[in-house]
Amino acid sequence: MKTVDLNCDLGESFGAYKIGNDSMVTSHITSANIACGYHASDHNVMNRTVKLAAEKGVHIGAHPGFPDLMGFGRRSMNISPDEIRNMVIYQIGALDAFCRVNGTKLYHVKPHGALYNMAVKDKSIAAAVVSAILDYDKSLKLLAPFGSEMTVAAEKAGLEYACEVFADRAYEDDGSLVARTKEGSMITDENEAVNRVLWMIKENKVRTVTGKDIYIKADSVCVHGDGEKALAFVEKIRTKLAENGIDVKAF
Amino acid sequence: MKTVDLNCDLGESFGAYKIGNDSMVTSHITSANIACGYHASDHNVMNRTVKLAAEKGVHIGAHPGFPDLMGFGRRSMNISPDEIRNMVIYQIGALDAFCRVNGTKLYHVKPHGALYNMAVKDKSIAAAVVSAILDYDKSLKLLAPFGSEMTVAAEKAGLEYACEVFADRAYEDDGSLVARTKEGSMITDENEAVNRVLWMIKENKVRTVTGKDIYIKADSVCVHGDGEKALAFVEKIRTKLAENGIDVKAF
Amino acid sequence: MKTVDLNCDLGESFGAYKIGNDSMVTSHITSANIACGYHASDHNVMNRTVKLAAEKGVHIGAHPGFPDLMGFGRRSMNISPDEIRNMVIYQIGALDAFCRVNGTKLYHVKPHGALYNMAVKDKSIAAAVVSAILDYDKSLKLLAPFGSEMTVAAEKAGLEYACEVFADRAYEDDGSLVARTKEGSMITDENEAVNRVLWMIKENKVRTVTGKDIYIKADSVCVHGDGEKALAFVEKIRTKLAENGIDVKAF
Amino acid sequence: MKTVDLNCDLGESFGAYKIGNDSMVTSHITSANIACGYHASDHNVMNRTVKLAAEKGVHIGAHPGFPDLMGFGRRSMNISPDEIRNMVIYQIGALDAFCRVNGTKLYHVKPHGALYNMAVKDKSIAAAVVSAILDYDKSLKLLAPFGSEMTVAAEKAGLEYACEVFADRAYEDDGSLVARTKEGSMITDENEAVNRVLWMIKENKVRTVTGKDIYIKADSVCVHGDGEKALAFVEKIRTKLAENGIDVKAF
Repeated sequence: MKTVDLNCDLGESFGAYKIGNDSMVTSHITSANIACGYHASDHNVMNRTVKLAAEKGVHIGAHPGFPDLMGFGRRSMNISPDEIRNMVIYQIGALDAFCRVNGTKLYHVKPHGALYNMAVKDKSIAAAVVSAILDYDKSLKLLAPFGSEMTVAAEKAGLEYACEVFADRAYEDDGSLVARTKEGSMITDENEAVNRVLWMIKENKVRTVTGKDIYIKADSVCVHGDGEKALAFVEKIRTKLAENGIDVKAF
Repeated sequence: MKTVDLNCDLGESFGAYKIGNDSMVTSHITSANIACGYHASDHNVMNRTVKLAAEKGVHIGAHPGFPDLMGFGRRSMNISPDEIRNMVIYQIGALDAFCRVNGTKLYHVKPHGALYNMAVKDKSIAAAVVSAILDYDKSLKLLAPFGSEMTVAAEKAGLEYACEVFADRAYEDDGSLVARTKEGSMITDENEAVNRVLWMIKENKVRTVTGKDIYIKADSVCVHGDGEKALAFVEKIRTKLAENGIDVKAF
Repeated sequence: MKTVDLNCDLGESFGAYKIGNDSMVTSHITSANIACGYHASDHNVMNRTVKLAAEKGVHIGAHPGFPDLMGFGRRSMNISPDEIRNMVIYQIGALDAFCRVNGTKLYHVKPHGALYNMAVKDKSIAAAVVSAILDYDKSLKLLAPFGSEMTVAAEKAGLEYACEVFADRAYEDDGSLVARTKEGSMITDENEAVNRVLWMIKENKVRTVTGKDIYIKADSVCVHGDGEKALAFVEKIRTKLAENGIDVKAF
Repeated sequence: MKTVDLNCDLGESFGAYKIGNDSMVTSHITSANIACGYHASDHNVMNRTVKLAAEKGVHIGAHPGFPDLMGFGRRSMNISPDEIRNMVIYQIGALDAFCRVNGTKLYHVKPHGALYNMAVKDKSIAAAVVSAILDYDKSLKLLAPFGSEMTVAAEKAGLEYACEVFADRAYEDDGSLVARTKEGSMITDENEAVNRVLWMIKENKVRTVTGKDIYIKADSVCVHGDGEKALAFVEKIRTKLAENGIDVKAF
């Protein structure tokens, strides 16, 4: 029987500022990527979010990002691989601390925003991220898109990884995501989005923006928990997965 | 044979900013309290400092402080015990991560600056600090002054602790430090400072600012590594300890 | 004819984080206290908010706070009057810059959160705030509660000020607000709140928590723009002021 | 008689962290670029530095940078021109506030670090910087290298500017600086450096790294105040300028 994981970014609030609908979305997902205080979150939010994920039986991952709260970690910064390794180590350790005090454990790491995008394409940044994870705890898993420099680096270094796909994004022929700035980058029709996901899981195929069918690995589907529409879509995708005999469980 | 530890705050540089003479002072001390990125330090400095301490065989402690880089963690802030627990957990985890990736281990925790001063006097803040340490790793030790609310809380909760004394500070009758703003708060004569330390270690006594001799526990002496004079004093104290048959080793 | 100003804190969003309903509330108020990037806001939000206030004809004030984004400037910090003066100067200048580039002008300054509370009660902090405003631009006005150390300091230094009152808060016999932690600190009945405001404006009296009627000056009423209920209350208070022949205009 | 300005970055300390030798170097320069709290400095340092520059009769300029204290504003960040305009406005206003309260005035603006480098080469970022300055106060001057996109944008928008040259840096044929990562980027021989500066001022020529002599405009020479060697070089350059009948005064 086929299985798939549903992952979602969680714990992105900060101080008096609230983002997301964490308590709702945790009922529908199997893995949570929890912000670590650099691009979002703070020590209180982290404790609360880890506790919530643990209570709901959701697997916890660290979601390290750039030290740029004002830009929500979405702005690329010219940072050396050595420093990126250090900043990932710092954030993993901080999040893991909240797992320890709450009697739960850390399962995976997924870089956030601009760090994710850079690690997808840049060999040395990918290697820095992988080295940070592996040196911290070799039983952790990396969550990254199939065919990215991250999965290549993980493979090479002997770090386990899971491949994530996006329901609402179009793919280029090389397996990368179509840039948001390009036309046709988003899959706006929900039924089409769900069908694409089903095909990715069952057939390991995705139709690219040029019409080609390419191989893809879909261990986990990235979903969003922000807003009613996003939540409704997560419920829909769960229903459809069940109807298609695909079990939803953490990778 | 009597033994005593020499501890020093380390790793307080930040980005392009340098504080302290870490590579020099690590040759003379046995325990280092390493800043964790809140009141000072960053992920690069932390990695570098942990590596340095490990190479020199110095025991590593976390030195968590308030999230106030501009004030170097020296300004008291009205923060709840719950939040203080979270901020200590966060910082311990972050520093411990650098211990793990550098193949060494974390031994102790000593709060910094205003957090230290508040935890010395406030029962609920002391309990929050102790709970953070204990819940993270019950084999860690707390470093705090004898008779403070911190050691009381540690005793009660079953957390091991070591008592630190200050060579250059005068004591009140209740065992607390004379406030820096008061006259006579500093012991400026170096010989007097050394003799006081020897007496604290050998006799468990200190003469207070009013002339009373009170009981004190001196497991560790806090020294400074900032500036030539400070370094010379550390060397002097080591020589005198040796002459008096007191072995310098980590608690 | 009696007049009164309605003031509201504005521009408290930050990066990807949104707080408040600024475009709605600006239709109902006459003065806006705009955050300056320390306890909330950033350069983009400030530009946007100043533009919005200018378009709606709302008088613009700077709303300087403590450098504590995580605590939203609500945590008291042990900061010297000299530093407080500098931090108020910095924030006034930054906000004024956005007034200048948007072809509008700065009218007043109202400290935020913990800085406000400390300046209400502490002579030297009040003097520091007043000195910052006066030295920057002596035509600016201070917005502060009647009888506070701030209005005393302003009076003494020759800085113009307006007195603000709170519709939803109970008062002590000395004219200060009942602490939020005490029972009865909030006026939860909307009609009572409105009637109290009318009485403060027309009779310069407020009934304290112990039942005494004390003198008060009400040049401006502080209202909130956060949430539907708050907006409805602002509309209600405007209607009642009109019915009572009180003109709503900036002080 | 030829004249030239000597400019230096000033006020880069932060909280407990000290950088530079500001009180020394201010005796030798005619213009100071003062950090504004984003890449370096804080409200206390800014007040102190503006006061110092005013006392020494040094012209004051704002030195706005990226919001990246950890990276000292030296890391390029992917920030939109609109946001860059806002961040420059914010920082100019903040520094100008300290000029106002200290009874002095702001003369110029020079972007810092990565912002400077990006504005040199990118038309839209250069236009954003120029627009920020012009819209804030059209009597301010821009300090930028000859032939950069900044001076082009200033020319077009009608903003006055002065051209700065570097004594210790090699130039490419297009008038840009040889990247620090390339060999031969630094002029390490002090006499050669001084002679190059004299030639730039007197003949408006500089010999590039390939041996070509190209036109250059030298209204101001950028010097450093950090360290004894730097200070000695500033004194040397002043002596040589005097010997060559070149008057050192602010542009």
